[in-house]
Amino acid sequence: MEKSEINVGLLGWGTVGTGVSRILVNQNHRIYQNTGLSLKLLRIAKRTLPAYRSGIDLAGGCLTTDANAVVDDPDIEIVVELIGGTTNSRELILRAMQNGKSIVTANKALIAKCGAELFQLAQKQGVSLNFEASAAGGIPIIKTLRESFAGNQIESIYGIVNGTCNYILTEMQKNGRDFSEALEMAQGKGYAEEDPTFDIEGTDAAQKLTILTALAHHISVPLNRVHTEGITKITQKDLQYAQELGYTIKLLAITKLKGTQIDVRVHPTLIPDHSMLANVSDAFNAVCVIGDAVGPTLFYGQGAGEMPTASAVVADIIDTARSITGNSHVLVPRAWISKPRSDISISSINDIETRYYLRLVVQDCPGVLAQIGTILGNRNISIASVIQKEPHCKNTVSLVILTHRSSEANMRLARVEIDNLEVVQEELILIRIEEFDF
Amino acid sequence: MEKSEINVGLLGWGTVGTGVSRILVNQNHRIYQNTGLSLKLLRIAKRTLPAYRSGIDLAGGCLTTDANAVVDDPDIEIVVELIGGTTNSRELILRAMQNGKSIVTANKALIAKCGAELFQLAQKQGVSLNFEASAAGGIPIIKTLRESFAGNQIESIYGIVNGTCNYILTEMQKNGRDFSEALEMAQGKGYAEEDPTFDIEGTDAAQKLTILTALAHHISVPLNRVHTEGITKITQKDLQYAQELGYTIKLLAITKLKGTQIDVRVHPTLIPDHSMLANVSDAFNAVCVIGDAVGPTLFYGQGAGEMPTASAVVADIIDTARSITGNSHVLVPRAWISKPRSDISISSINDIETRYYLRLVVQDCPGVLAQIGTILGNRNISIASVIQKEPHCKNTVSLVILTHRSSEANMRLARVEIDNLEVVQEELILIRIEEFDF
Repeated sequence: MEKSEINVGLLGWGTVGTGVSRILVNQNHRIYQNTGLSLKLLRIAKRTLPAYRSGIDLAGGCLTTDANAVVDDPDIEIVVELIGGTTNSRELILRAMQNGKSIVTANKALIAKCGAELFQLAQKQGVSLNFEASAAGGIPIIKTLRESFAGNQIESIYGIVNGTCNYILTEMQKNGRDFSEALEMAQGKGYAEEDPTFDIEGTDAAQKLTILTALAHHISVPLNRVHTEGITKITQKDLQYAQELGYTIKLLAITKLKGTQIDVRVHPTLIPDHSMLANVSDAFNAVCVIGDAVGPTLFYGQGAGEMPTASAVVADIIDTARSITGNSHVLVPRAWISKPRSDISISSINDIETRYYLRLVVQDCPGVLAQIGTILGNRNISIASVIQKEPHCKNTVSLVILTHRSSEANMRLARVEIDNLEVVQEELILIRIEEFDF
Repeated sequence: MEKSEINVGLLGWGTVGTGVSRILVNQNHRIYQNTGLSLKLLRIAKRTLPAYRSGIDLAGGCLTTDANAVVDDPDIEIVVELIGGTTNSRELILRAMQNGKSIVTANKALIAKCGAELFQLAQKQGVSLNFEASAAGGIPIIKTLRESFAGNQIESIYGIVNGTCNYILTEMQKNGRDFSEALEMAQGKGYAEEDPTFDIEGTDAAQKLTILTALAHHISVPLNRVHTEGITKITQKDLQYAQELGYTIKLLAITKLKGTQIDVRVHPTLIPDHSMLANVSDAFNAVCVIGDAVGPTLFYGQGAGEMPTASAVVADIIDTARSITGNSHVLVPRAWISKPRSDISISSINDIETRYYLRLVVQDCPGVLAQIGTILGNRNISIASVIQKEPHCKNTVSLVILTHRSSEANMRLARVEIDNLEVVQEELILIRIEEFDF
């Protein structure tokens, strides 16, 4: 027999939780119209009872400070975890699943770290565990990878998945700001935390990338196997040189399959400035997925914020409710329930081949280019183009070199040799290049 | 009890059918890995038995010329209709559903025309009817509207959903070609039919738009209620003027909700040239969806072709197989099974308000701009900017006017008056403008 009313409980009532309650309460009738489902927000747990939130008319007794009152409530069928972190959230989700409840979560850190444990219990208990909001906010990239592209071999993923970094790079590029100035603006707008390390050093993007990779390739990639570089070393100059050469710099989260190897990395990347990804500005996110059948695709939208993230969480609640009413089987990601794949392995960053942008500050004296060219040539790294500008101060000049495709291992050796040259005044800036024709 | 092997039958073995069989046969193991489902391509019906198709190893006896042998085969659970048209395809689908089979189709004309009949039977029979490939090819826009954005009120849809028109406009814009020259190139590349009317007059885009509108607003829009203009009147000059003014011209399929009215239209449109949609080039498709929670989103990919379309068809087959093995309830679009909505109505094109681009060829004599300005002013149409170029031939000049937001009804009256002016040498070219800030 089909049930049409489903009771939902929320753990956490911060920004996203507020958005979710706003939709569940205020748009209850619309969801019924869109889906035929009647979703009832029965309880919300929050550590300290919050002030009234304007515009959301909760039923009396809905709010509690006791999270267990949600996960143990026999009337609640779907528990939505929006606490964050990996300690309390993990324990509450495990307990809720042991109580037979299905789970929706937006917690990328938890999925990235504890995916195996959580999905194995979900499968054992026959409950759903959905997590669309854990990567790229309102963009339905997780459903797309799991369902819409299920007939494809995913060849590559290129994601702009951290809105903070994209906002900072956009401000630097469009308005000529320094990194530190753009970071301050991002903090002023609420796009960056007071301690922005997690975003600007690429960790947030790396966590999201492990989730996308797990779904694309059914392989669980530990965070420490993702080569991760942030954007803190990117300067205004690099953006200017890149632009002169027809490129934009974006922080990309990249997964590429080559034969039986996947390479999984997050770093600033030069991309052609006429490409779709280069046009993704401000705090927006976009994920480009290339499948062997579907070809190149791109999914664009807001990757964070109250309502876009709530949109994804509510979609998961609806999917979960459809599973419950329809008694459909649980869609479990293989990455986290099967034995480790032996047919695919994760490359080391040393194994990749790509093009490079190199920026050097060197003494303005004869023979400098020859010295650098010799080091690169000896390592089989071929130069595609060079820009050398007039000296601007103290007899030093900036030298920008784009290379043809070269091995990362060779480039690393060359880099050490170049940094050791007496004529080189500052540490070499190296940014990898990806080419797109869309 | 869950079944894991599902038998599939194909009706039609043209371009898309070949792609679908290629994935089902050659990537059978991958689909199993991705989904846990074992899909078996049991039969393919084609009117005349085709020559061998390279690279697809069909089982003996798989091919038949008798379509009923597919729809009546008791072992087949999913029938995939790839014949096209609305006569045979309709009869075969109805018969297959009466036999208890679920359906996957890529047939936009059939869904647009017979959606109500087909979905009502599907619901009665408790079978699935999936149609992702019927709009925007490999882009999962139908699943996104039905599932991922189910918690949203969809406010607007702006789609580049006809690859032929987008290829032609891109060639005109980027390579300075005439319309007829670009059309010939499109025909040479197989993007346009010998009789290209269906694409270049906007009918194909209008059919797709009725499907997207049905899913976004649960309303079945007859094709004759979609205001439809093609791209045949767009000239090289219009693209040049648009560019000077910071715009690109695209054929957009537009649905907008304003209160209880939706306006549904297909026409060439000036859009800001820095916007994401303006960067969609060549035969690519993209659909921008704005939801009240998720905000602006964009979905980009190949809208046609053997493998991208097959990717969408196979995703539908997998979803359908999941429904069958999981016994999940059937997801039926309300637009086609409920009574007509009384709370929303379709606007007439006369009811819209928008900005306009007007191009006139006028005599190069005093007072012309005043005459035109007076007509517009009398109709409450305010001018935002004007370009008048030096005369290029026979004492005529081109005059380009961008207006502020104005009523379509007033503009139509003004247009007649302008076309009747003695100084006006050619029919006024009018293109609507949409503004985006993303």
